[in-house]
Amino acid sequence: MRLNTAERDEIVRQRVETQLTRRITAPGLEEILYDRMPVLDYGFVRVIDYMGNDAAIVQAARVSYGRGTKRASEDQGLIKYLMRHRHTTPFEMCEIKYHVKLPIFVARQWIRHRTANVNEYSARYSIIDNEFYIPAPEHLAAQATANRQGRGDVLEGEAAQRVLDLLREDAEHAYASYIELLNEDTSGAPIDPARPGLARELARMNLSLNFYTQLYWKIDLHNLMHFLSLRADPHAQYEIRAYAEVILDILKRWVPMTYAAFLEYRMNAATISATGLTVIRRMLAGETVTQQNSGLSAREWRELTALLARPA
Amino acid sequence: MRLNTAERDEIVRQRVETQLTRRITAPGLEEILYDRMPVLDYGFVRVIDYMGNDAAIVQAARVSYGRGTKRASEDQGLIKYLMRHRHTTPFEMCEIKYHVKLPIFVARQWIRHRTANVNEYSARYSIIDNEFYIPAPEHLAAQATANRQGRGDVLEGEAAQRVLDLLREDAEHAYASYIELLNEDTSGAPIDPARPGLARELARMNLSLNFYTQLYWKIDLHNLMHFLSLRADPHAQYEIRAYAEVILDILKRWVPMTYAAFLEYRMNAATISATGLTVIRRMLAGETVTQQNSGLSAREWRELTALLARPA
Amino acid sequence: MRLNTAERDEIVRQRVETQLTRRITAPGLEEILYDRMPVLDYGFVRVIDYMGNDAAIVQAARVSYGRGTKRASEDQGLIKYLMRHRHTTPFEMCEIKYHVKLPIFVARQWIRHRTANVNEYSARYSIIDNEFYIPAPEHLAAQATANRQGRGDVLEGEAAQRVLDLLREDAEHAYASYIELLNEDTSGAPIDPARPGLARELARMNLSLNFYTQLYWKIDLHNLMHFLSLRADPHAQYEIRAYAEVILDILKRWVPMTYAAFLEYRMNAATISATGLTVIRRMLAGETVTQQNSGLSAREWRELTALLARPA
Amino acid sequence: MRLNTAERDEIVRQRVETQLTRRITAPGLEEILYDRMPVLDYGFVRVIDYMGNDAAIVQAARVSYGRGTKRASEDQGLIKYLMRHRHTTPFEMCEIKYHVKLPIFVARQWIRHRTANVNEYSARYSIIDNEFYIPAPEHLAAQATANRQGRGDVLEGEAAQRVLDLLREDAEHAYASYIELLNEDTSGAPIDPARPGLARELARMNLSLNFYTQLYWKIDLHNLMHFLSLRADPHAQYEIRAYAEVILDILKRWVPMTYAAFLEYRMNAATISATGLTVIRRMLAGETVTQQNSGLSAREWRELTALLARPA
Repeated sequence: MRLNTAERDEIVRQRVETQLTRRITAPGLEEILYDRMPVLDYGFVRVIDYMGNDAAIVQAARVSYGRGTKRASEDQGLIKYLMRHRHTTPFEMCEIKYHVKLPIFVARQWIRHRTANVNEYSARYSIIDNEFYIPAPEHLAAQATANRQGRGDVLEGEAAQRVLDLLREDAEHAYASYIELLNEDTSGAPIDPARPGLARELARMNLSLNFYTQLYWKIDLHNLMHFLSLRADPHAQYEIRAYAEVILDILKRWVPMTYAAFLEYRMNAATISATGLTVIRRMLAGETVTQQNSGLSAREWRELTALLARPA
Repeated sequence: MRLNTAERDEIVRQRVETQLTRRITAPGLEEILYDRMPVLDYGFVRVIDYMGNDAAIVQAARVSYGRGTKRASEDQGLIKYLMRHRHTTPFEMCEIKYHVKLPIFVARQWIRHRTANVNEYSARYSIIDNEFYIPAPEHLAAQATANRQGRGDVLEGEAAQRVLDLLREDAEHAYASYIELLNEDTSGAPIDPARPGLARELARMNLSLNFYTQLYWKIDLHNLMHFLSLRADPHAQYEIRAYAEVILDILKRWVPMTYAAFLEYRMNAATISATGLTVIRRMLAGETVTQQNSGLSAREWRELTALLARPA
Repeated sequence: MRLNTAERDEIVRQRVETQLTRRITAPGLEEILYDRMPVLDYGFVRVIDYMGNDAAIVQAARVSYGRGTKRASEDQGLIKYLMRHRHTTPFEMCEIKYHVKLPIFVARQWIRHRTANVNEYSARYSIIDNEFYIPAPEHLAAQATANRQGRGDVLEGEAAQRVLDLLREDAEHAYASYIELLNEDTSGAPIDPARPGLARELARMNLSLNFYTQLYWKIDLHNLMHFLSLRADPHAQYEIRAYAEVILDILKRWVPMTYAAFLEYRMNAATISATGLTVIRRMLAGETVTQQNSGLSAREWRELTALLARPA
Repeated sequence: MRLNTAERDEIVRQRVETQLTRRITAPGLEEILYDRMPVLDYGFVRVIDYMGNDAAIVQAARVSYGRGTKRASEDQGLIKYLMRHRHTTPFEMCEIKYHVKLPIFVARQWIRHRTANVNEYSARYSIIDNEFYIPAPEHLAAQATANRQGRGDVLEGEAAQRVLDLLREDAEHAYASYIELLNEDTSGAPIDPARPGLARELARMNLSLNFYTQLYWKIDLHNLMHFLSLRADPHAQYEIRAYAEVILDILKRWVPMTYAAFLEYRMNAATISATGLTVIRRMLAGETVTQQNSGLSAREWRELTALLARPA
């Protein structure tokens, strides 16, 4: 998250300027507007703009002439109702725009969320900075054995050090070659005027997937919550989850009523299968249910019993 | 566009309240925020909220730390470049939200633009008002004969009067039956307490397609221009075009540079087919080209020659 | 669902012609291809085309060179896994296309599902048939009192008859006026050559929302299941649910493994809120939980206890 | 495009099996179904499945009971009409599914087309093959000087050889480290049983952007043509254009009438700005127009005069 002086100045300038508006505002979000929230080693999330707040959801749900209901408790009740019954369109009436700096392999997962607007920093036009992601030692994990997709035990000692060294050396080597291929320094001046440089759109292919890129990313609140429900989930890869958790904190500032309803009815809720519901009914009726007589697979049984045993 | 007192008050209240924001604003649009722009006999368009302005497009195109370029002329140049080369994603970074009142048959065309967010006034929950569209006499046209889709000569005199009477009588009749089916007045109280009313979700089916409905409609600037390029076009049905023209005026207030580029490169531009380009090249080389030797169909020939003859 | 002879012949012709293909087929769906499945009084659903089957989902999930796995049991297991973990993209790899005839007020709900492709019969070009929906007596219900959106008791006797008469008379009256406005018979010939007819795009506004229209509708399997989870649900309006149930039967013919997984993990599953999960845990621990000490609202408590009491 | 024996066998098996279907078929496309069309050094495009053909477009445009019109010439006329007037929805009624193998930096451009369905080979689950893209010498170009995005002169001799050597050495080095990080061979067996391997989802970040990945990609015909109009364009980066050109050939086999209309009204057509149209009108009226009096920028003038001078 190293910025040059010009970049720092730009951010400061944005933060001090205020304008009058007749639009609905979200005071909690205004406080952090344009600020960088650090993620991973060089990444960040900045909120660039937003539209709407909790009241705007109510206003849209009612196709209202004015601004939602008169009382906050009514707004809260309606928002909970909408979330619980998956009436999703009023949540689409709020929008947010971020500036995100993230490793390319994370950007590749991110971009799969198609109902969003994206502008990415172009390596056809511009030269990529020498910034690449190296995991913190506590996130260096072995391949999971139970689950083909995921991480197992954390690497330690020499094994961990060897990984870190290899990742760093290879990224530095790839970047050095990239600059040699371009034959340009970051200002665009030729390094060796005697030979031609390779086109930027070609040279970039030598960079590895841990190099950082940047996105402008705009999304409506409904689709943002869908993104969060997948990417703030423990099954998501740690690196994208780190971003999702920061965005979840931002959500709380922006639409606190929606945030509370989202935790209650989505993030901390669970979908239980038809057979799983039958198992619960049998248990509540006092029957001793085992995996063998449950109708559930071993894995589903394990997940259901873990869910029911979890402390409140 | 008859509003009750409560509705008027709501609009006035929204218009007088101002807040401080760090966000980019569009002063020309702030002036008309929440105001009703009348369309057709009872319809309107109101801007409820917006995100971004011309500078936001530049900012996104550059994935910038700050606010676009330093100079307006550079912003204008980049916006023209983006429009001309169909780099559409930076335009997606602006968003606007409208409250629209429109006849159901217009809403049915409107809703076909899928990349937008919509909340419609629900006739399952609520009772529809007694407001229906009757065309102004100058818009009563006969079926076009040349073009199976479209209008021909304007109806006049007795024929026109007969149409207007029939449309009005039938709508009034349909509404009276609707209320009888509901057995509710607009406050929800039973008219005849001795008999049950029909469920609202069923009674509504008796209303005709010229009754007014209301939408909250939110769309990004790129998709809005696509909507306008189709619906402000002379081939669009007059009734939806009337809305598109009002929205085009709003566009000018919101993003004046984009508006100018949109007229130059989209609305007032023309796509010429491969064969049409060859015809123009032959004409410029001094050849006398006729429909017969042009390779164009009679209709394409007529359209091309009309386009080339149009006064500047 | 009255068809003329030409229409019947077209359908018969499509059904008897067969071609050889190298593509994956779904034998259960081939049987009913092009056939009309009746819905409501004049509506229908016909499958016009499809792409893929259960094996295609497996094939896409594996980004495979060949056709899914070797064994049906493995395919079934993977499909269940994908459904359970909301890995939705492999289901998007199947596609289906329907021809649907439905009342306009149903089409208005239908079209809100945006991730689909639609061509609708155009009343700007063509004349609408004299076919309108009249509910069967058992579906004539009063407005629900507990739930502002929905139906209560069924109307009976004279009250029901009055509704049916009114709906029928008004629709017939609206159609007669429509034809008078058009001054055309269904072949397009003028009825009274002495006067001009009104343009079709205008005359249509006199029709009521129970008139039938027709759609070609194409959607991928993932989005189709989303449609079904909302529209085959008891909260959906009866008229669209009637279509959803027919489409659910078609789903079973097309992708039987996916259909079974969809019932288990979506249609017959339930999402339980964070507080609801705590209630279940407390109950399983032997605690007596009441609405008052549950942390749930009265309505949520009622819904949770109903769910847990439902017979297996 | 090296395949192992199992992969080859899968493809052969798919190609020899045929089934009977009542669906519309596209004989030209059936011929090449499942076959690999080579692109770049190791890439390919395979058609896996399709829905519809030219007749299906006509059928949808007419919301027809049968199969399009009776005569091919009428079908062709309607398809041209639809393409010319940008009636895009009937083209959405055809769908095609590809299996594509392509370098990651090309996949990153590809995926920006959001209205499509994608499954990508997962490097969280699986080990990436040792296949990376090295440009053919004739595609090694210097950075363009006139155009910040694009290529200039082709590199030759020693400069070219140095680029090729560097790209190859670095990719081989990155892959060797990747395998060392994983500590697994391609069968998943540990190389050095004494130490743990790094999780696959982490190790992949060491690979460079020229490594090959694979997609299943499904898209409707309208959006496919939009993809082609951008990616088969001379402004597109060569590497993605190579894929677009193969897909353009496939389009011709699938929907020959649509292909012809697409070339005439889209690929080989041109959009001329409002000012550009005025310039043409002035030229046709015999006026000598220069850049200075044209109202066009130098660049626009250059592009317009080049377009008008292009041989037929």
